[in-house]
Amino acid sequence: MKKLINNPDNVVRESLEGMAVAHPDLLKVHFDPHFIYRADAPVYNKVAIISGGGSGHEPMHGGFVGMGMLDAACPGEIFTSPTPDQMLEAAKTVNSGAGVLNIVKNYSGDVMNFEMAAELAISEGIDILNILIDDDVAVKDSLYTQGRRGVGTTVLAEKICGAAAEQGYNLKQLAELCRLVNTNGRSMGMALTSCTTPAKGTPTFELGDEEIEVGIGIHGEPGRQRLSLKSADDITEMLALSIIEDSSYIRTVREWNQGQGEWVDVELTDPPFKSGDSVLAFVNSMGGTPLSELYIIYRQLVKVCQQQGIRIVRNLIGSYITSLDMQGCSITLLKMDDELVKLWDAPVKTAALR
Amino acid sequence: MKKLINNPDNVVRESLEGMAVAHPDLLKVHFDPHFIYRADAPVYNKVAIISGGGSGHEPMHGGFVGMGMLDAACPGEIFTSPTPDQMLEAAKTVNSGAGVLNIVKNYSGDVMNFEMAAELAISEGIDILNILIDDDVAVKDSLYTQGRRGVGTTVLAEKICGAAAEQGYNLKQLAELCRLVNTNGRSMGMALTSCTTPAKGTPTFELGDEEIEVGIGIHGEPGRQRLSLKSADDITEMLALSIIEDSSYIRTVREWNQGQGEWVDVELTDPPFKSGDSVLAFVNSMGGTPLSELYIIYRQLVKVCQQQGIRIVRNLIGSYITSLDMQGCSITLLKMDDELVKLWDAPVKTAALR
Repeated sequence: MKKLINNPDNVVRESLEGMAVAHPDLLKVHFDPHFIYRADAPVYNKVAIISGGGSGHEPMHGGFVGMGMLDAACPGEIFTSPTPDQMLEAAKTVNSGAGVLNIVKNYSGDVMNFEMAAELAISEGIDILNILIDDDVAVKDSLYTQGRRGVGTTVLAEKICGAAAEQGYNLKQLAELCRLVNTNGRSMGMALTSCTTPAKGTPTFELGDEEIEVGIGIHGEPGRQRLSLKSADDITEMLALSIIEDSSYIRTVREWNQGQGEWVDVELTDPPFKSGDSVLAFVNSMGGTPLSELYIIYRQLVKVCQQQGIRIVRNLIGSYITSLDMQGCSITLLKMDDELVKLWDAPVKTAALR
Repeated sequence: MKKLINNPDNVVRESLEGMAVAHPDLLKVHFDPHFIYRADAPVYNKVAIISGGGSGHEPMHGGFVGMGMLDAACPGEIFTSPTPDQMLEAAKTVNSGAGVLNIVKNYSGDVMNFEMAAELAISEGIDILNILIDDDVAVKDSLYTQGRRGVGTTVLAEKICGAAAEQGYNLKQLAELCRLVNTNGRSMGMALTSCTTPAKGTPTFELGDEEIEVGIGIHGEPGRQRLSLKSADDITEMLALSIIEDSSYIRTVREWNQGQGEWVDVELTDPPFKSGDSVLAFVNSMGGTPLSELYIIYRQLVKVCQQQGIRIVRNLIGSYITSLDMQGCSITLLKMDDELVKLWDAPVKTAALR
C-alpha cells in the first residue's frame, strides 16, 4: 500500500488536524469525541444541520461545514460509523435553541447511532429530527444497509437544507424539505478499480483488468453486476437510465414523532422522473477519476436526459462523495422545483463548495 | 487501461464538449482550433489573460476561465503543447484592445508556440506579452524543458494576475506582477504511482510497490531521486525544505521587448524564502490522491514552515494541476506581500475556483 499517511491508525485524526489549521476562518475541530463545527456556531436563531458518517468520502462531510451548509460533521474512522457521543456533543455545541436536523445516510451503523444520539439529545431538551438519505437505486439491501444506500443526494440535501436553514426555515420545515430532496433524488455509481483502506492495506475487492462493477457502493459494496469495460457513453447511459426508469421501489423512512414520543416508519412512494421534469445533474468522481473524464460523462448525460425529455437546470461536477482512491463515478439526478433551485443558488462558503 | 472515455483520440474534444454544456454561464468553447474563453469576452477595457498547455492537468487551465482569472485557455492534446493557431485565435477573440498577457509554463513546445503566436498577434496589431512560469525546484533541465519546469505557481499566477486585470492593471503592470509571482513562487512534487495516458494505455513509467519518485514532473518526467516509501511527514518535510532552501539558481526569463522589437533574456536572481516571510501554501493532488491525505500533508507543512519562521497567510488545498490519475502531491510556496494577498482574496468565478 502506498499512501500519503503516517500511521494508518492516525489518518482521521491527522487529517482533521490539517483541516483545523487550514480553515480556521470556517471551522473548528473538537477532538475526543471528534467533530467539525462552524467557527461561528451556534448561529443565532438558526436550526443547526449536522451530518456525519465514516471517513474516506472526503470532502463529505467535513468539507461542507460552513455558512449555507452544515453546522457540524461527525467523522467516524474510515468506512466506520461515528458514535453517538460525537453526534450528541456536536448537537450540544451547534444548537442555538432552534433545534437540530441530522442528515443521515442509510447505513445500519449510522442509522442506529444517529437514532441513539437523537434520543439522548431529546432527553437533554434539544429539538432534533433525523432524516435518512437512501437514494442509491442500484440495490435494495446491501452489505451495511437495509433498504437503499445513501449516496450522492446527501451532498445536495446538505446544500439545499443548509441554505433553507440560513433563510429561517424551522425544524419541521427543514425536515420536510430534506425528505423532499431525498424523495426527488436518485443515484447510481460504478467502479473501474477498488479502493484501498489504510487499515487493510490491500484492495477492498478485486476487479479484472477489463472489468467494471456497476452499482458499486461507496465502501466497495457489491453492485448490480460486473461487466466487461464499456465506453464512457455506454456507462453513462446505463447509469442514467437506471436512475430515470427507477419507479417501482417504495422507500420507508424512519422518523421521530414527537407527538407519539417514538420512532415511526413513514412509507414514501417515489415518483419517477418523467418527461418535462427539471433536474440538477451531479456527476461525481469516486476519488481517483480525472476531472476530464467527468466532463465526458456529463456530455453524454445531457444527451440521455434530452432524449428522455428531462431538462438539466443545474449541475455539479467533481469529487464530492468519494471512496478514497477508487476510480469510477456516480451520477445523481435531483428533480428540481423553483424552491429547490433558489436554495441551490443561495450563497455557500465551505472548504469544498462555494 | 481502464478509463471513462470513448475513443482515446477524442478525449480532449469530448471533454471540452462536456465543459461547454456544463458551464454556458461562464465559458464558451471554440473548436478547430480549440480554445475555451469567457462567455462575456472581450471584457471592455480589460487586459486579457490567456494560458494553455497540454491537456491532462485538469482543472488547469480550462477550469480557470472566468471572471477574476483567465479570459481564455488553449488546451493541447494530452501532454502535448497547443499550437500557435489556437493561441492566436484565442487572443483575437478575447482582446478588448487593452492587450493580452500569455502565462506560459516553461516547456519547450509551449514556449516555442506561445512565442510564435505572440509574434503573429503583434503583427496583427495586438499588444501581447508572454511571461514564463518556471517554479519547479526539483531539476534544472528536464525531459521537455530547458531550465526549470512550470508547475503549481502557474495556478497562483493565473488567479493573482486575473484579479489584477479586473482591477485595471495595464499590460506592463500585469507582466511585472506575473514575473513577481513567478520569482516569489517555488514548487516540488512527488509521485506514488505513474499516470496512464489514453493514447499509450500503459503507465508512463514504472515505480516499485514500495518506491516513490521525488521531484516528479507533471508529465511523469524523472525527478531528483527514487526513494523507498516514506511517511507523509517525511515526504512533506523533504519537499518543503527543498523549496525553502532553494537559493542558488538563477532563472532566465524570455520576454518580448517592444522597444527593441525582439525577444530578450532577462536574468532573475531568486531571493530565497527567509524567516519572517509570509507565504501562500498550496498543497496539490496529482489527481488520484484523496483529499484527506492532502490535509495530512498540510498539517505537517504548517509545522515545517513554523520551524523556519515562515508564516502561512493563505492556502489552497486540492486538485488544481494534475497529471491524469497519478497518485502523489506537490507543494508550492508563494511569498506574499499586501498587494498579492489583496489580489488573492479578490472575487473569482470559474468552474474550478471560486
